[in-house]
Amino acid sequence: MNVKLIEAAEGSYQYPLLIKRILADSLKHEPQREIVYRDVFTMDYLGLNKRVRQFANLLGRLGMDGGKTIGIMDYDSHRYLESYFAVPMTGNVLHTVNWRLSQEQVAYTIDHADDELLILHEDFLTIAQPICDQLPLVTKVIITSDRPSFTLSDIDHLLTAAMRMKVIGEYEALLRQETDQYTFPDFDENAVATIFYTTGTTGNPKGVYFTHRQLVLHTMACAALYGGALDSTFSGFNSSAVFMGLTPLFHVHGWGFPYYATMVNAKQVYLGKFTVEYFAEYFAKHGATFTSGVPSILQMILTSPLTAGLDLSKTKMLIGGSALSAKLGAEALARGIDLVAGYGMSESAPMLTVAYLNKQKAQTATDSGLQARITAGTPVYMVELEVTGPDGGPLAHDGHTVGEIVARAPWLTGGYYKEPGAGRKLWAQGWLHTGDAGTIDGHSVVRVTDRIKDVIKTGGEWVSSIHLEGIISRHPAVAEAAIVGLPDTKWGERPHAMIALREGYDASEEEIRAFLSKYVESKEITKWSVPDRVVFVTSLPKTSVGKIDKKLIRTMI
Amino acid sequence: MNVKLIEAAEGSYQYPLLIKRILADSLKHEPQREIVYRDVFTMDYLGLNKRVRQFANLLGRLGMDGGKTIGIMDYDSHRYLESYFAVPMTGNVLHTVNWRLSQEQVAYTIDHADDELLILHEDFLTIAQPICDQLPLVTKVIITSDRPSFTLSDIDHLLTAAMRMKVIGEYEALLRQETDQYTFPDFDENAVATIFYTTGTTGNPKGVYFTHRQLVLHTMACAALYGGALDSTFSGFNSSAVFMGLTPLFHVHGWGFPYYATMVNAKQVYLGKFTVEYFAEYFAKHGATFTSGVPSILQMILTSPLTAGLDLSKTKMLIGGSALSAKLGAEALARGIDLVAGYGMSESAPMLTVAYLNKQKAQTATDSGLQARITAGTPVYMVELEVTGPDGGPLAHDGHTVGEIVARAPWLTGGYYKEPGAGRKLWAQGWLHTGDAGTIDGHSVVRVTDRIKDVIKTGGEWVSSIHLEGIISRHPAVAEAAIVGLPDTKWGERPHAMIALREGYDASEEEIRAFLSKYVESKEITKWSVPDRVVFVTSLPKTSVGKIDKKLIRTMI
Repeated sequence: MNVKLIEAAEGSYQYPLLIKRILADSLKHEPQREIVYRDVFTMDYLGLNKRVRQFANLLGRLGMDGGKTIGIMDYDSHRYLESYFAVPMTGNVLHTVNWRLSQEQVAYTIDHADDELLILHEDFLTIAQPICDQLPLVTKVIITSDRPSFTLSDIDHLLTAAMRMKVIGEYEALLRQETDQYTFPDFDENAVATIFYTTGTTGNPKGVYFTHRQLVLHTMACAALYGGALDSTFSGFNSSAVFMGLTPLFHVHGWGFPYYATMVNAKQVYLGKFTVEYFAEYFAKHGATFTSGVPSILQMILTSPLTAGLDLSKTKMLIGGSALSAKLGAEALARGIDLVAGYGMSESAPMLTVAYLNKQKAQTATDSGLQARITAGTPVYMVELEVTGPDGGPLAHDGHTVGEIVARAPWLTGGYYKEPGAGRKLWAQGWLHTGDAGTIDGHSVVRVTDRIKDVIKTGGEWVSSIHLEGIISRHPAVAEAAIVGLPDTKWGERPHAMIALREGYDASEEEIRAFLSKYVESKEITKWSVPDRVVFVTSLPKTSVGKIDKKLIRTMI
Repeated sequence: MNVKLIEAAEGSYQYPLLIKRILADSLKHEPQREIVYRDVFTMDYLGLNKRVRQFANLLGRLGMDGGKTIGIMDYDSHRYLESYFAVPMTGNVLHTVNWRLSQEQVAYTIDHADDELLILHEDFLTIAQPICDQLPLVTKVIITSDRPSFTLSDIDHLLTAAMRMKVIGEYEALLRQETDQYTFPDFDENAVATIFYTTGTTGNPKGVYFTHRQLVLHTMACAALYGGALDSTFSGFNSSAVFMGLTPLFHVHGWGFPYYATMVNAKQVYLGKFTVEYFAEYFAKHGATFTSGVPSILQMILTSPLTAGLDLSKTKMLIGGSALSAKLGAEALARGIDLVAGYGMSESAPMLTVAYLNKQKAQTATDSGLQARITAGTPVYMVELEVTGPDGGPLAHDGHTVGEIVARAPWLTGGYYKEPGAGRKLWAQGWLHTGDAGTIDGHSVVRVTDRIKDVIKTGGEWVSSIHLEGIISRHPAVAEAAIVGLPDTKWGERPHAMIALREGYDASEEEIRAFLSKYVESKEITKWSVPDRVVFVTSLPKTSVGKIDKKLIRTMI
């Protein structure tokens, strides 16, 4: 389309959105606020800036002069935060290695990402040494340690010959040798800043990557969202906040908070790794006002006797990673935690939605706004979400039509690293396919129901298996129910049910159909949701980790 | 420099930062909040979105199909807000015409900007009709009116033949004819969205222009700044706020607040034009919690008996446009207004700095933080400011070295429209030259002292005439003092003083020098600041508007 483009004046500055701008912002308001790594290390933002410049000089000395990929296997620490800045700000790429993957997968990701330098905590030598010969590209290793006066000689006896050849020094000692003068260069805002890997159920881990522009925009949106542009219960993550991240920093930029907290001068407290012991100790010491984590972390906090004496009533918590149950949400609210759910994924950097509860409405909500808090929420500023049908077309935002959630935002991965086919599929029809099924209502509220692979495509419509299972489970005789889609020549797929009955109860296929027809009448489900067949078993088959094994069920019906 | 660029997956969406995203955000959280134009018109955000789509259809019907410039001469109203969105979102350029300029200048700007369509309030026919024949490019005029059941026949008798040929209808009637279905297209985020003119002391007005990308980023930064990412006294401009802008919408995007307020669903109240009567009436009715304006507007509010009964204690006000005096600031604080100064200009879209006062520190500040509030403040997120010397090199951030304030930010004009020479000068050395002299201290706090043309360049250093005049004025015999720079073969320029003595007082040149040498000793001024010559007069020469006439003084010394 025709638009007006005006050539900028000769010599004018074309401002690129670079991560160095986030760090520069950290010196503007309250640079004396602290960044704490347990009792190992404390610095202020002047210190962070200084150390990032030293780190940059070190990278230059090691030949990491832009376009190189640097892996980090470390605990959540001041060092990790420094790498979030120094590596991309020197034009290099930070690979945040997920050391919880299998050894085989760790080796695959480090090699696939083209890591040349590895920053390695001494504890992870046990992972890295056995795979050392699978990493020909990694020519240099920097060791980190949490021990106060650690030197390389402390681990010399542990090093294999192959590893010893690559180890070039210890992080703190190397940093000390560098000056703190460094001018960070400008370059293309579309330069890749970070890469990390996401694991599916099949195949190799896939690399997602994010540019400077994307991370700056994600950080700006975080500022709008958490700072308080919304009069939400969840605002107030500001320059006076104490942030304690309980999301590993290798996991989707610690959900973006380290960048955001740095920009606004929040105090940051890192625990290395999450243990309830550390949490209780450092929460008591620093009084975190803002934190984030997956539901299981929240569960651990709430059930541990170690946290019984903590006042959690000044703490806000963003829950992500998987759905937050009403039960867990209610328990957290009862302890005074002001919590909300968020929704996103590795491919989306990750923020897509955050639960929104207006502060005033929250005061009059009968359930303390629990339902609003545990719902995926509304799209973050600049994020556009749709639900699409099996044909890729957009579906109604009516709160009950289920489709695949697809996204556009300024911070979505451009694809999968070195996997053009998978990237093309991810971006089919120009939208990022989340692989999640859900609904959007007239107030933009997103509800995630199933993984799309568990949704049944029948006659051009989608049926949520989880929704249907929930309804069948309301029948008094039903202990557990599983819905799977089986091929159908006319409709493409049709739902089939497998039901485990409660001991001492009985029910027929006819009875279950009659039961469901009431929900068809009340429009909770569509008539094509009623399963073609209902099979009764004494118990549903489960996988080794206790999940219902739908793959097996499909072969059994 | 070498960086890693990865080609995005085939079919992936390249998200452009477009103004349509700001409007889309307005439907996400509290779309029922109102936009009020006095008692003329009220709508909610659903209404705004609907009307913007109708407006877009109208523009298409009129052949304004992208790349065309549309001028608006209207009062601050719902219509003006609609034009902020509909015009750029259809790929066209909005020219916010400053109707306060001379008729000659209005004609110049409309023609120079290439306006083809003019949206014209009936009150401004008196300006537009006499210049109608100077506007050959303007082929269509849409009339707006605040009268309830206005039709074109109401003004038919006023129209000249030339104007009558161009008038194609009345805004509301034209809008009603259009459907509210419209899909806003994607295009280059560097497309120009707005243009307006800035007047210097000499020459024609100069056009500054801003792209979609720039305005989106400016809005995101506003969200971070005013929403509350900072724990500043000035946070809390959020979705529950009531915004009443007292800055004309033709003036630098009403300082950016209409875009920001729309994004976050604040209630917006427009007065058409500022009068104390309107302010008092609609403030009483809507209770504005956030407002903005120039010092003279604040002065009018504070001194009018009409506002005596208003409770201003829940109102925050951003003051810009010119320096906020301590006296006026103190008066506002005494009335309970939570005010801060901001600094920017037409060329900078405009936010460069905003005074920052930490909420907790404010509570213990002896002067209610007055000094911090009236200082230009700290650079907005993403903004980089320097002070540079006469040679263009950066000067120390020590709080007393005066230099020209130069800027880099993601939202600075690319130049002056059709004035490449002026644009090149604006952007000398890759920095936007503000033309203001000032200092930056170690806490990033910017103080603006003089216009750079009033600063004396001597021996490679800059001397602030205003600072020096202030110090000379402390001498009991001095009524008024003016410092000007005169050419000097050795030093380039040297300061010279002209002093008007108080009646009944006397002082010699020697005495003034001796007086100043004390300030040299205490380091308030440098020794090269002491004027070469001091000339005494009974009164300083003034311009017609009462300003000291330095031009004339230079010829008198």
